Amino acid sequence: MSGIFISFEGPDGAGKTTALKKLMPLLQKRTDKEVILSREPGGSPISEKIRKIILEKENEEMDARTEALLYAAARRQHLIDVILPTLKQDKVMLSDRFVDSSIAYQGGGREIGTKEVAEINNFAIEGHFPDLTVYFDITPDIGLSRIKKDHEGQMDRLEKAAFSFHERVYDSYQEIVKDNPDRIKTVNANQSPEQVVKDVLDIIVKRFPKTFAKGE
Amino acid sequence: MSGIFISFEGPDGAGKTTALKKLMPLLQKRTDKEVILSREPGGSPISEKIRKIILEKENEEMDARTEALLYAAARRQHLIDVILPTLKQDKVMLSDRFVDSSIAYQGGGREIGTKEVAEINNFAIEGHFPDLTVYFDITPDIGLSRIKKDHEGQMDRLEKAAFSFHERVYDSYQEIVKDNPDRIKTVNANQSPEQVVKDVLDIIVKRFPKTFAKGE
Repeated sequence: MSGIFISFEGPDGAGKTTALKKLMPLLQKRTDKEVILSREPGGSPISEKIRKIILEKENEEMDARTEALLYAAARRQHLIDVILPTLKQDKVMLSDRFVDSSIAYQGGGREIGTKEVAEINNFAIEGHFPDLTVYFDITPDIGLSRIKKDHEGQMDRLEKAAFSFHERVYDSYQEIVKDNPDRIKTVNANQSPEQVVKDVLDIIVKRFPKTFAKGE
Repeated sequence: MSGIFISFEGPDGAGKTTALKKLMPLLQKRTDKEVILSREPGGSPISEKIRKIILEKENEEMDARTEALLYAAARRQHLIDVILPTLKQDKVMLSDRFVDSSIAYQGGGREIGTKEVAEINNFAIEGHFPDLTVYFDITPDIGLSRIKKDHEGQMDRLEKAAFSFHERVYDSYQEIVKDNPDRIKTVNANQSPEQVVKDVLDIIVKRFPKTFAKGE
């Protein structure tokens, strides 16, 4: 494996997805390696089918452990179909969400337990953790108010969950960040979109200076 | 929980499904409890959607660990939607396959490892093992020759796997049976369908004599 694997994490409304779109060309300009962006759950044909089951609003009777196992299944297939081949080709792999999302959302948010959810994810990823994880830090009150504004009431099943769910997700993320100081770096997501992108870019360039040295 | 939970296990071509259809009315005649039959993977709306992804022939690029996680997810939802409510209503729950199938097929057959597959299934079932498991014992050569005759070449993705896969499944089942002498009872499935049904009925009646005492 000679590529670079970077995941992006954070609560709903942190602005990850928007920031990643702006970040992509900025990163690509600085390196000769190809930069690939993918998202979780999904990112490959089988994973997209699993994603569809997870996010369908009609499946509201879905049990929390079923949900956690489906996320782990989608993650596994995404790893096999997209992430590992990209890394083998010496490319830069950006993943919008990865294993920490399950630990925060299903382990903490759905109260299954972070340790148990980490175990089924270890089965899924077999040690393939990201080289770097950028955590978009935003409190649930600000994150959720952003989503409501953007979606105009069209929220999916997870976004519609109670506020206490999102508080538990936030608390779990804080713990994960604290427990993984080498892998995870935090960005203050309660800033202008431009400043957030700038901060994320700084973190990545500082961590992999040789890869992203072009045009400096 | 006051109902009775019985699972039925065995390699492909063991004749489980056929025997269960004949067994149902015979069991029902002997008890005032309602007898419910369900199958895995599937048995509830969400589980059927997951089953569809697993068995689709086009998904031949599915990774073995993805498959194992999807089976565990379908099992979890089937447990929550069907098995536990049935047991709470003091009924008799018959399940065509349960956790041992994953350990034999994914753990042994797909060579993920029986211990690792058992762990993700423990996450899924949270200790809800069957009260009794009836194992249909048939060697892979006889089992597969039966399937070829019945399906006339229309085999699904799992049935089409190499013979060595089915040998590993068989060997894993032997180990599971050896390790669980109290829970699992073996029936010789290489007999006439009538004799197999009779043997299964004997095992169940002997194990739960009070429940199935009617009309004796």
